[in-house]
Amino acid sequence: MNPYDIKIKVAAIGLNRADLYIQKGMYRKGAKPGMEVSGTVTNMGKEARRFAIGDKVCALVEDGFNPIVTVIEAMALPAPANLPLTHAAALPEAMATVYLNLFLLARLKPTDSLLVHGGTSGIGIMAIQMARTIGAEVSVTCGSPEKCALAIKLGATKAINYKQDDFVAAGGFDIILDMVGAPYLQKNIDALNPFGKLLIIGLIEGSKAELPMGKLLLKNLSIIGSTFSSRPLQERYEILETLREFWWPKIESGEIRPIIDGTFPLTDVAKAFEKMENFKHTGKILLIP
Amino acid sequence: MNPYDIKIKVAAIGLNRADLYIQKGMYRKGAKPGMEVSGTVTNMGKEARRFAIGDKVCALVEDGFNPIVTVIEAMALPAPANLPLTHAAALPEAMATVYLNLFLLARLKPTDSLLVHGGTSGIGIMAIQMARTIGAEVSVTCGSPEKCALAIKLGATKAINYKQDDFVAAGGFDIILDMVGAPYLQKNIDALNPFGKLLIIGLIEGSKAELPMGKLLLKNLSIIGSTFSSRPLQERYEILETLREFWWPKIESGEIRPIIDGTFPLTDVAKAFEKMENFKHTGKILLIP
Repeated sequence: MNPYDIKIKVAAIGLNRADLYIQKGMYRKGAKPGMEVSGTVTNMGKEARRFAIGDKVCALVEDGFNPIVTVIEAMALPAPANLPLTHAAALPEAMATVYLNLFLLARLKPTDSLLVHGGTSGIGIMAIQMARTIGAEVSVTCGSPEKCALAIKLGATKAINYKQDDFVAAGGFDIILDMVGAPYLQKNIDALNPFGKLLIIGLIEGSKAELPMGKLLLKNLSIIGSTFSSRPLQERYEILETLREFWWPKIESGEIRPIIDGTFPLTDVAKAFEKMENFKHTGKILLIP
Repeated sequence: MNPYDIKIKVAAIGLNRADLYIQKGMYRKGAKPGMEVSGTVTNMGKEARRFAIGDKVCALVEDGFNPIVTVIEAMALPAPANLPLTHAAALPEAMATVYLNLFLLARLKPTDSLLVHGGTSGIGIMAIQMARTIGAEVSVTCGSPEKCALAIKLGATKAINYKQDDFVAAGGFDIILDMVGAPYLQKNIDALNPFGKLLIIGLIEGSKAELPMGKLLLKNLSIIGSTFSSRPLQERYEILETLREFWWPKIESGEIRPIIDGTFPLTDVAKAFEKMENFKHTGKILLIP
């Protein structure tokens, strides 16, 4: 066992869309599904100091579809005491991704107007709540009236049912967080205010679209692509430190909370993927090993 | 006369590619050609304090194809004493654009490797010299062996004749400054290092191209479009202040110098445009009113 590693007996695995792509072979070569887990520390390397055996934690991992995972302790956070241990598996990937994009890359300000696509996805739910924390105005797109209602309940100012309404008409926005990809590229650019920033973190509906470069220049826009798991290790550690120091108290106070769609046994992962692929979920799907 | 304005008797007008688009009606509605001039102060508004009548200045203006222009004094800088007054018309637009893009938007660091397209354009010449000032490694693309040689003389580490060689093979780059547009979009993305930034300030060869969004995400890239003249007035003032304080001494010491292609009488502007449109110029074309 490496000196800074801890072993975790997995209570739950947070399912991410990237897991779906990994399973289909459409992701980084060699990547294995299971990006985040919660569970109990069962072993510690001789230099690991942050946790003790028996501690409840959640962690960013690389091969998490397993009953036991090993991870460097810097990639783990304490499981918030106010949540069921399984629910803690819904936190690290979504919160780290939202923090990286909205706060580090786009430098979200209280006066910014933000649009988040997929408002009730794992990412969307955290983006709404984290942006509201600093007072930014958050609009979202969702695929049903029920999802729109949940987004409003979580703090969104405006929820647009994209099956009925055009989000461009609801603009302009200073920052857009997108995971839809190709079919939204031109609409996103039209919906941005001058000096706006488009953050692209997923390409659910396609990865190739024509870029209207004239608008990019005249509106002084930025397009920023990112994949949290491919960022340098040091940056990921620092982001987890910020989650622990600044954002964890907001989880523990209940100001920010995860929404759990439901759980599947790990052996039924195919059903979980099917639900995710058909957008039948609201919030995070958990797998129980 | 507005209280903060000064009147300038124009000695020379620096020709910009945007002037060509304005003349063709392919730019912002109502825009008039003539973005930068040098000349002598002939009148001052009652609150204008920075200059005196008779001072030699250069300035960013909005309708500069004229023998006399009026401009708010904050948009003017002293003409460097070591240069002919006409040559000062080559400085403000190119230096402000390069400073905005490389330093403010892309935060160029000494350890970055930079690629500048159009290495001997007005922008290219300043980008090479300003980036070299902080020690960044600068590669350029140019269209002839003579232009490549000039770029090397100005401090470029590598000059790629794009008619013979592929700049992607010469990568990777941390930052690319591009004004070619559509035909270079995919090549620029391929030539960028992970976490790289593509700054697009012009679209000489086209404005619509397919964006390979998958690479954007997996390489964590940013694409930043900008047009200096459409930035907020306050930002443009601040950039001119930085030119005055930090960059002007480097012009006055000869560390950074403009390259003048030649001069045309303003009445022969059509010939000047023709030369620019056919890429027959090296450095800045000046018009004499």
